Amino acid sequence: MSLRDTRVTLAHGGGGTAMRDLIEEVFTSVFAPEMMEDQARLMDAALQEPGARLAFTTDSFVVDPVEFPGGDIGTIAVCGTVNDLVVGGARPLWLSAAFIIEEGTEVALLRRIVGSMQAEAEAAGVRIVTGDTKVVGRGMADKLFVTTAGVGVIPPGRNLQAGHIRAGDVVLVNGVLGDHGAAILAARGDMALSVDLVSDCQGLGHLMEAVLAAAPGTRAARDATRGGVASVLNEMAAAAGLAIEIDEAVLPLRPEVRGICEILGLEPLYLANEGRMVLVVPEAEAEAALTAMRARPEGVGAVAIGRVLSGRAGQVTMRTLFGGARIVDMLVGEQLPRIC
Amino acid sequence: MSLRDTRVTLAHGGGGTAMRDLIEEVFTSVFAPEMMEDQARLMDAALQEPGARLAFTTDSFVVDPVEFPGGDIGTIAVCGTVNDLVVGGARPLWLSAAFIIEEGTEVALLRRIVGSMQAEAEAAGVRIVTGDTKVVGRGMADKLFVTTAGVGVIPPGRNLQAGHIRAGDVVLVNGVLGDHGAAILAARGDMALSVDLVSDCQGLGHLMEAVLAAAPGTRAARDATRGGVASVLNEMAAAAGLAIEIDEAVLPLRPEVRGICEILGLEPLYLANEGRMVLVVPEAEAEAALTAMRARPEGVGAVAIGRVLSGRAGQVTMRTLFGGARIVDMLVGEQLPRIC
Repeated sequence: MSLRDTRVTLAHGGGGTAMRDLIEEVFTSVFAPEMMEDQARLMDAALQEPGARLAFTTDSFVVDPVEFPGGDIGTIAVCGTVNDLVVGGARPLWLSAAFIIEEGTEVALLRRIVGSMQAEAEAAGVRIVTGDTKVVGRGMADKLFVTTAGVGVIPPGRNLQAGHIRAGDVVLVNGVLGDHGAAILAARGDMALSVDLVSDCQGLGHLMEAVLAAAPGTRAARDATRGGVASVLNEMAAAAGLAIEIDEAVLPLRPEVRGICEILGLEPLYLANEGRMVLVVPEAEAEAALTAMRARPEGVGAVAIGRVLSGRAGQVTMRTLFGGARIVDMLVGEQLPRIC
Repeated sequence: MSLRDTRVTLAHGGGGTAMRDLIEEVFTSVFAPEMMEDQARLMDAALQEPGARLAFTTDSFVVDPVEFPGGDIGTIAVCGTVNDLVVGGARPLWLSAAFIIEEGTEVALLRRIVGSMQAEAEAAGVRIVTGDTKVVGRGMADKLFVTTAGVGVIPPGRNLQAGHIRAGDVVLVNGVLGDHGAAILAARGDMALSVDLVSDCQGLGHLMEAVLAAAPGTRAARDATRGGVASVLNEMAAAAGLAIEIDEAVLPLRPEVRGICEILGLEPLYLANEGRMVLVVPEAEAEAALTAMRARPEGVGAVAIGRVLSGRAGQVTMRTLFGGARIVDMLVGEQLPRIC
């Protein structure tokens, strides 16, 4: 019962012995779910605490290319779903992982991606407990799509929500923006951009717990993935019926990311991140939150980028380097397809 | 904020306003999740009962064609994940739904599929509480792939497992076999098969609760999807270290399904089902289980097809119509790609 094939065939999705071998050798031997009988049977004491709530989220990942500097589709499939849970105040517990594989995909590539997923899961303290594999014919998918779902527990009393932000609150981010989007763009190669950019993909669970310990009044958090920081700020402002103003002068951007954006006419605030979150905290706790973040590798570049104002409901503005102000809208149309 | 487009474009996956409009108009307006802030925050009293366990499962669906007699990719995405939970003894509570959409897919098709999903979810008593949408370029996916994950609760004391089956137990199925696989095959049209076959896709939660009430000693259940009844029986026999013998004369098969299998040289025991399960019950409870099943529309065709024996560990055999016996192996290779 050994997987001799070097590439995935349709038989690996057929429900028979080839599929069993692929699943056992490539997936469950690495993820090692404890109770695999087609489904996971689980419990965690934290879920049974009175007042605890269950958080449940999902994301499909279709990033192109599937491997890039700083990670691969597996890394972001784990980090993305972990971070979705984390920004809601949940402690991530369990993940599912479903793979749609194009016939002809190299088994070695799958193994690398599964390895990345397990490494990220271990770093985040979550377990990949259930999964699925489908194979489609050549040309019917682009190599590999991964869909993860995540279950976590929100401890009693925690209630982060965009609707909770108030005028005077401070807007924080945990590091430089846009590295993931710019790194993917550069990795595609079709722009002949020669930069050494690495995706920012990382799990944010430990950072979030540190922030909540230091700044228990934290109002809301969101991971700034597709649509970037601009979209998160717009959604938060809309949900709260308040305005948000950010300051261009303090936006943390690498010179390489700035350069790519200038060359290609992109707005860095719309670039996708896979390890960056926007946090809104009461002014009195902003310093404590920043200090807690900067003490951790995931938050070493944390800065305050703006403030919540009682101005026009739902409006996000940026004070520009030249002393003016401009509206930062939600992304209209589409900036970079298949960024995650 | 109205979706004027009739086809999905890359902008609908970009994280901006077009994506928000698509999600709001096509998905959340139908699924109506109560707490949508990028993730669901949930609790159910049954989960907090001492001894309760959480069941968690996922499946990707890549069926071709996406619409077929008796259902569509949305129907099976809900039924499949619900049934995965149900056969483990869980009461399904919540589903996630992630969509990978090929650019150019008709919005009207998405609306039909979302409608099917909501209808099946309501019938099964589950809520679709969180989701995701990605768009890939033309030719990078085949119309639409759907991945669902499901969370359910296994009440205290329930412990269905293939490893629990014993010699003398009776093997039941809840109706005719292979309708789904044969209906998909016919729907593809490339065989010029003119039959009126309808997929068997349906949720099995209510049926399972009826069986467990009537036959509380039920050992194990499995939904017979990819790989069909043959694969389920082989997995059960292997898990228990026992033999299973089934009787060809009593296998419930429609004449049309028999006919398609004869023409194409397929084995009906390997055909996929999306609303059929294999149940193993103690002999003393077999009649009660059958009676309970036949009282419900999902189980009206329920029959006993075989028995667990203490013979060769892991071996599944079939007594043939001609009085002989033959081994029913796991499917080797691949019978029908993209059947679910």
